[in-house]
Amino acid sequence: MTADRPPLLSNPRSERVRLVAALGRRAARDKQGLFLVEGPQAVREMLRYAVHAAEVVYLTPAAARRHTEIVAAAREGGVRTQECTDQVLAALADTEHPQGVVAVARPVDVPLAQALDAVAADGFAVVLTHVRDPGNAGTVLRGADAFGASAVLVSAASVDVHNPKVVRSTVGSLFHLPVSTGTPVPELLGACRERGIRLLAADGAGSTTLPEVDLTGPHAWVMGNEAWGLDPGVLALCDEVVSIPIQRAESLNLAMAATVCLHASGAVRAERRS
Amino acid sequence: MTADRPPLLSNPRSERVRLVAALGRRAARDKQGLFLVEGPQAVREMLRYAVHAAEVVYLTPAAARRHTEIVAAAREGGVRTQECTDQVLAALADTEHPQGVVAVARPVDVPLAQALDAVAADGFAVVLTHVRDPGNAGTVLRGADAFGASAVLVSAASVDVHNPKVVRSTVGSLFHLPVSTGTPVPELLGACRERGIRLLAADGAGSTTLPEVDLTGPHAWVMGNEAWGLDPGVLALCDEVVSIPIQRAESLNLAMAATVCLHASGAVRAERRS
Repeated sequence: MTADRPPLLSNPRSERVRLVAALGRRAARDKQGLFLVEGPQAVREMLRYAVHAAEVVYLTPAAARRHTEIVAAAREGGVRTQECTDQVLAALADTEHPQGVVAVARPVDVPLAQALDAVAADGFAVVLTHVRDPGNAGTVLRGADAFGASAVLVSAASVDVHNPKVVRSTVGSLFHLPVSTGTPVPELLGACRERGIRLLAADGAGSTTLPEVDLTGPHAWVMGNEAWGLDPGVLALCDEVVSIPIQRAESLNLAMAATVCLHASGAVRAERRS
Repeated sequence: MTADRPPLLSNPRSERVRLVAALGRRAARDKQGLFLVEGPQAVREMLRYAVHAAEVVYLTPAAARRHTEIVAAAREGGVRTQECTDQVLAALADTEHPQGVVAVARPVDVPLAQALDAVAADGFAVVLTHVRDPGNAGTVLRGADAFGASAVLVSAASVDVHNPKVVRSTVGSLFHLPVSTGTPVPELLGACRERGIRLLAADGAGSTTLPEVDLTGPHAWVMGNEAWGLDPGVLALCDEVVSIPIQRAESLNLAMAATVCLHASGAVRAERRS
């Protein structure tokens, strides 16, 4: 045993393992102020884009040999690595197949004002109101990232973006752009409006269609709950209610609608740059 | 007991229930030539758009009272309904919450030539090659339906579109447009080409970008496997390799990419009509 190579963590029933494993649950995340980042891809992106948040990276000896870039990035960023047995890694992880790598990090969400700064400077954002499904939230984060959104604003009473299922489905996007969380919907929309960010509600019943809407200035797409959509009260707080023209099918699901809207916003900006 | 009101099915361990429940597995679907349609929404759409395929609709007495439109549509279409206990319905269903309604139907896929007829007449289609995840296949079917595609072409070695998870995630779209299945990829692409359908491979490495590509004539979007994308051999069979411009994020997932491509094709046709 040397100072820079701590012994292999081998007891899956230890207090430390129990504490990390508990981060699969929201109450434990809130209490400990930490969350889980699982799998080499997500851990690599965290070390690259949000190294300040990283606490510890746990790896099996095999994963440490396979992912030397992760071990090097952790060392360079001053992040502790800890080797552990396959049994301990399986006990730490929420995922069934974390591929030998799990990290623990402090939450990466930013204050609302900081997220809005990025949007108000001619950007665009997506607002998730009462979105409950982790996979949907993850897909929206990924789309926001892919199409160049400046921020993702997640209202109070939505899924926790630090939920392992969300983190997993963003494939690293959680670390790429400012994400604000926890503000109740009316305050969130009011703050956007004060910063000159136009609020576009995405709703199948919208009177403006996507090809008609002006996407040139700072704007935010407001997305509702998977099952019931946007409340009339929320629609009334938006500047426009925009529908995606469809031919058939009852409606698009939340992730599909957000993908199409964010792609349209990104395309307008890409065209302007070219 | 009267002729038009058969007795309540009450034994969840009966041979009949066992046979229906087995349809959750592909081998049983292939052997029996039947598949499961679960939940009021999917059953309603099947009775409306593909009543010829329907064999039996199973309902709990409560669901029969709640969904009189389903009972009426079945009667009108000459489809047998069978009331059963909650326990029997739970045993029949693959889903945890089928909301009291499960139907059994014959496969709804159509011969390839029939699907291509619809596309060749100035339509567009999506080709799924080696797509394995039921949720992805379901989302693509839903997007094809929503944006007005003429057909969905699913290659051999892809997920079974009659898998209960696919049926569920299409929310009825499976019954709205021609779906062809089981043709190996080279034959499938060859048949498209013979009918004058341009083959557009969706691939992050494509040299043509989505805004540049001509979507006016008959065309088909060729989508690859979730993990490895499209084989070089398949790319070589396509007319163009098209990428969706993205700013960040490693790549879009299959369902997001298909949604954006199908939306673009649908938008070109909607614009022409207006």
